[in-house]
Amino acid sequence: MADALLETLRAIVGPAHVLVDEGEIAPFLTDWRGRFTGRARAVLLPLDTAQVAAIVAACLDAHVPIVPQGGRTGLVLGSVPDASGNAIVLSLRRLNRIRAIDVANRTMTVEAGCILAAIQAAAAQAGMLFPLSLAAEGSCTIGGNLSTNAGGTAVLRYGNTRELCLGLEVVTAQGQVWDGLRGLRKDNTGYALRELFIGAEGTLGVITAAVLKLYPAPQAALTALVALESPRHALALLGLLQARCGATLTGFELMSAFCLQLVAHHFPDLPRPFSRTHPHYALVELSSNESSQHAQGLLETALGAALEDGVALDAVVAASVQQALGLWRLREHIPLAQAAAGKNIKHDISLPVSRIPDFILHADAALQAAFPGCQPVTFGHLGDGNLHYNIAPPVDVGHEAFLANQAAINRIVHDAVTLFGGSISAEHGIGALKRDELAHYKSPVELDMMRAIKAALDPLGIMNPGKIL
Amino acid sequence: MADALLETLRAIVGPAHVLVDEGEIAPFLTDWRGRFTGRARAVLLPLDTAQVAAIVAACLDAHVPIVPQGGRTGLVLGSVPDASGNAIVLSLRRLNRIRAIDVANRTMTVEAGCILAAIQAAAAQAGMLFPLSLAAEGSCTIGGNLSTNAGGTAVLRYGNTRELCLGLEVVTAQGQVWDGLRGLRKDNTGYALRELFIGAEGTLGVITAAVLKLYPAPQAALTALVALESPRHALALLGLLQARCGATLTGFELMSAFCLQLVAHHFPDLPRPFSRTHPHYALVELSSNESSQHAQGLLETALGAALEDGVALDAVVAASVQQALGLWRLREHIPLAQAAAGKNIKHDISLPVSRIPDFILHADAALQAAFPGCQPVTFGHLGDGNLHYNIAPPVDVGHEAFLANQAAINRIVHDAVTLFGGSISAEHGIGALKRDELAHYKSPVELDMMRAIKAALDPLGIMNPGKIL
Repeated sequence: MADALLETLRAIVGPAHVLVDEGEIAPFLTDWRGRFTGRARAVLLPLDTAQVAAIVAACLDAHVPIVPQGGRTGLVLGSVPDASGNAIVLSLRRLNRIRAIDVANRTMTVEAGCILAAIQAAAAQAGMLFPLSLAAEGSCTIGGNLSTNAGGTAVLRYGNTRELCLGLEVVTAQGQVWDGLRGLRKDNTGYALRELFIGAEGTLGVITAAVLKLYPAPQAALTALVALESPRHALALLGLLQARCGATLTGFELMSAFCLQLVAHHFPDLPRPFSRTHPHYALVELSSNESSQHAQGLLETALGAALEDGVALDAVVAASVQQALGLWRLREHIPLAQAAAGKNIKHDISLPVSRIPDFILHADAALQAAFPGCQPVTFGHLGDGNLHYNIAPPVDVGHEAFLANQAAINRIVHDAVTLFGGSISAEHGIGALKRDELAHYKSPVELDMMRAIKAALDPLGIMNPGKIL
Repeated sequence: MADALLETLRAIVGPAHVLVDEGEIAPFLTDWRGRFTGRARAVLLPLDTAQVAAIVAACLDAHVPIVPQGGRTGLVLGSVPDASGNAIVLSLRRLNRIRAIDVANRTMTVEAGCILAAIQAAAAQAGMLFPLSLAAEGSCTIGGNLSTNAGGTAVLRYGNTRELCLGLEVVTAQGQVWDGLRGLRKDNTGYALRELFIGAEGTLGVITAAVLKLYPAPQAALTALVALESPRHALALLGLLQARCGATLTGFELMSAFCLQLVAHHFPDLPRPFSRTHPHYALVELSSNESSQHAQGLLETALGAALEDGVALDAVVAASVQQALGLWRLREHIPLAQAAAGKNIKHDISLPVSRIPDFILHADAALQAAFPGCQPVTFGHLGDGNLHYNIAPPVDVGHEAFLANQAAINRIVHDAVTLFGGSISAEHGIGALKRDELAHYKSPVELDMMRAIKAALDPLGIMNPGKIL
C-alpha cells in the first residue's frame, strides 16, 4: 500500500518533491532544539493548495497520517513526526508567495510557507507594519505562527497571531479546500472556523494561506530600560504607562537581575546601562504615529512621574536607534545566555497580569523548599502576563544532573500556575511535549469538547496525530 | 412527559421562575422589531450557573429544545422560539452579577445577563473603559453580545465583542459547566473553544459568564464631521487619519447626504453643521490618553491636511462635549428617521474596506436597473467595512408595497456583496432570519464543517434549533 501511495504522491507533486532518502529527509525529522528525532515514510514538498488537497485526499484513502510542517522552529515537538515511521511530513515551505497586498484594506494575503521576516519586509515596503515579531522570525513560517497562535514581543499592543488574521485558506482533513480568505473586520456568518484552525497545531487541517492585518507603520519608536525594586513595582509601572500612553505603549518586558547577570557574564560586550545592579528591570517601548518628539515627550513625562512616585528606581531612555537596539539585545540575549550557561528547565506560562507578583513569590518559595538554591531565570512579556520562568540549578549542581528533576519542577510550577488562574502554555502551544501536562491540568469537560471537535473534523485521525490530544 | 419536565424545572429554579401563563410569557416570544412571535412551553428564569446546568440536563433528558435569551434586542430572530411551541425559553436576565473587577489585569468578570450599559458604568466607576458600544446598550445583555459577536461603533479601535473577551463560562449542550473564565492575554492550550461559543448564537451551549477586557479610560475624546465628495474620498480620509493618528482614531462612520436629509426632515431640532448639502459625510472620533489639547492638535492638523489635499470638502470639529453629542446624534438618528419614514429593506453587510466605493457604485447601479428610483440609505462603520445599506422605495411607491421586493433586493445586494468579497451579516448574526441566505451563499465545505461541529457538541440538537443552520 505504501508503495502505491508513494506513486500517487509522486504524480501529485512531481518525483523531485517526494523525498524518501534518509539523508534528504533527516533535516525534517528533528525538532528545533534537537531533543527529538522522529521517522517518516516521506517528506512532501507541494507547490500549491491544490497539491496539498490532493495529498491529503490520497493519505486519507490510505489511512496514512500527515504531519504539517512550517519552519520547524516550534518548541513543543508539534511539527515533527513520532517514532513510528507511519506518517508523511508535509512541508509547506514551497507555498511561499505573497498573493496580494491591499493597503487601503490594511491586509495582505500570504501563503503558509512565507517566512515571517519576509512578510514583515513586504509590509514595510508597502509603508505598513505587520507587527508579529519573535525570535525565530528569520526561519519560522506564517503557517506555523498561525497553527501555534504565536505571541512574541508586540502582543501588548497588537495581540497574538490570532488577532492579526482575518481569513484562512485550509485544506480540511477530508482533503477539501475551504476558502475562508476573507479580508473583513466584521463577519458574523456562522461558527468561528478561522479561530478553530488557528492554534490547532495542524491537528484539524492544513492552513495553506491567510489574510493578515496590517497597521500603519509608526513614525517613531522609543525604548527605555527602567530599574525596579520588585515585580509589584513593574506592575505599577505598567499600569502607569498604560493609563498615560494608551496604545502608544507597544512593549513591556520584565527581566530579573539574575537574567542580566547571566547576559553580562556570557556576553560582556553588550551594554550595561546602569552602574549598579537593581532587583528587576522593565524594557519599555513606545511607538508613535505622530513623531519622535511626541514619543519622547510622552515617555519622559511618564517616567518622570514613575520616578517621582517611587514606582521606578532609575531609568535610561535610548538616545538613538543604536542604543535602542542595544537595550533590546539585552532582552534577546537572555535565552542565549541561558544556553551558554547550560540547560535549564523551561516554562512558558501566563497569568492574570495582576497575579504575577504573588505567583513569583509563591513559586519561588515552593521551588526553594523543594530544591534549595535553585535559580529562577524570570523574564517575559509582563504586559501580556507571559513569563518564561526557567529554573537553573543551584551553583553547586551540574546542569545535566539537575534536568533529572524536570518532572517534579514542572509539577511545582504548573501547580502554582493553576492556583493563580494561569496557563501552562502561553505562546508555544502543546505539541507532543506538553500533551501529558495538558491532560493533567485541563478539565474533563474541556478535553471532551476538544476530542469531540477533533473527531468531527478529522474522524480518521490522520492530521498530526499525537499532538495536543 | 412535558408535565413531569415542568415539575423538574420548578424544583430547579423555584415555581415563581417557571412562567407558563400566556400573558406572562408573551413578552419573551416576540422579536425586537415585532416581526415574529413564536411559542414556547415555558419561560425559565434561573438565578445562577448551577441552575442553568440543571435545566439543560433536564431538557436533554426530555429531548426538549432550549432557546437561550438575553435582552432580546437581536435583529435576526436569534433569541425567540419558533412557532412549534416545543421549546422552553431560557432567559439569562437574573444572572446579572458583576463578579469581579481586576483593574491591574484590566479585566472584569460578569454574568451573561448583565446589561451592557451596566457593564460600561461599572468599568467607568473603576476608572476604566469597556469599549463595546451599540444602539441597544441600555437593553442588550453581554451574553447576547457575546453570542452574536456584536460590533458597534468602537470596533475600528477595540474590535468586536470577540476581541473584548478573554474567557467564558458555558453550560454545554450536555448540561455540564465548562469553566473557561480565564483572564489571560496569552493561552495556547488546545482548541479555541471560547471563540467557538462566541458568535454561535446559543446553538452550541449557553454562555453564563465572561471575563471581559478593560482599557484605561481616555482623557479626552474629540468628534468632527467631515464633508466629502464620495465614498472614495471617505476611504482616502480614513487612510490619512489612520496613518497620522494611529490608535487614537476610535470612530469613523460614513453617512450619505440622503441619510442626513432623512434625519433633518424627521428630526428638525437636531444640529445642521453645514450650511449646504454635501454628497457624503464622515463622523470621526479621536480619543487620547494624553489630553484634550493632544487630541485637538492631532485632529486639526490631520483635517487641515485633508482639506489641503482635496480629500475633504469641509469639516467642523465639536467645540464642546455638547456639540460632540449633537454630531453623534445625527448618526444615531438615521435608523430612527428611517423608521419614521416607513419600513425599508435592510442589510447588514461588510466588505474589504478598499472595495466599498466600487461596491456602492455597482450595487446602486444594479438596484436602479431593477427598481428605478429606489433610494439607498447608505451609512455605517466605514472603518470596519461595515455598511447598513438599506433600500427605501422610490418617492412614488409606498413603503409597504415596496417590501414585496425584499427577496429580489436581498439577492441583488447579497450577490454584489459576494462579488466584492464581503459578508451578508457583518454584526447582526444569522439567527432564523438569514438562515436561508447563509445556506445560499456559504460554501458546502464550510457548511459541512459547521454541521459537523454542531453535531459534535450538541448531538441531540436541543440548543436553539433552527438558528444559523
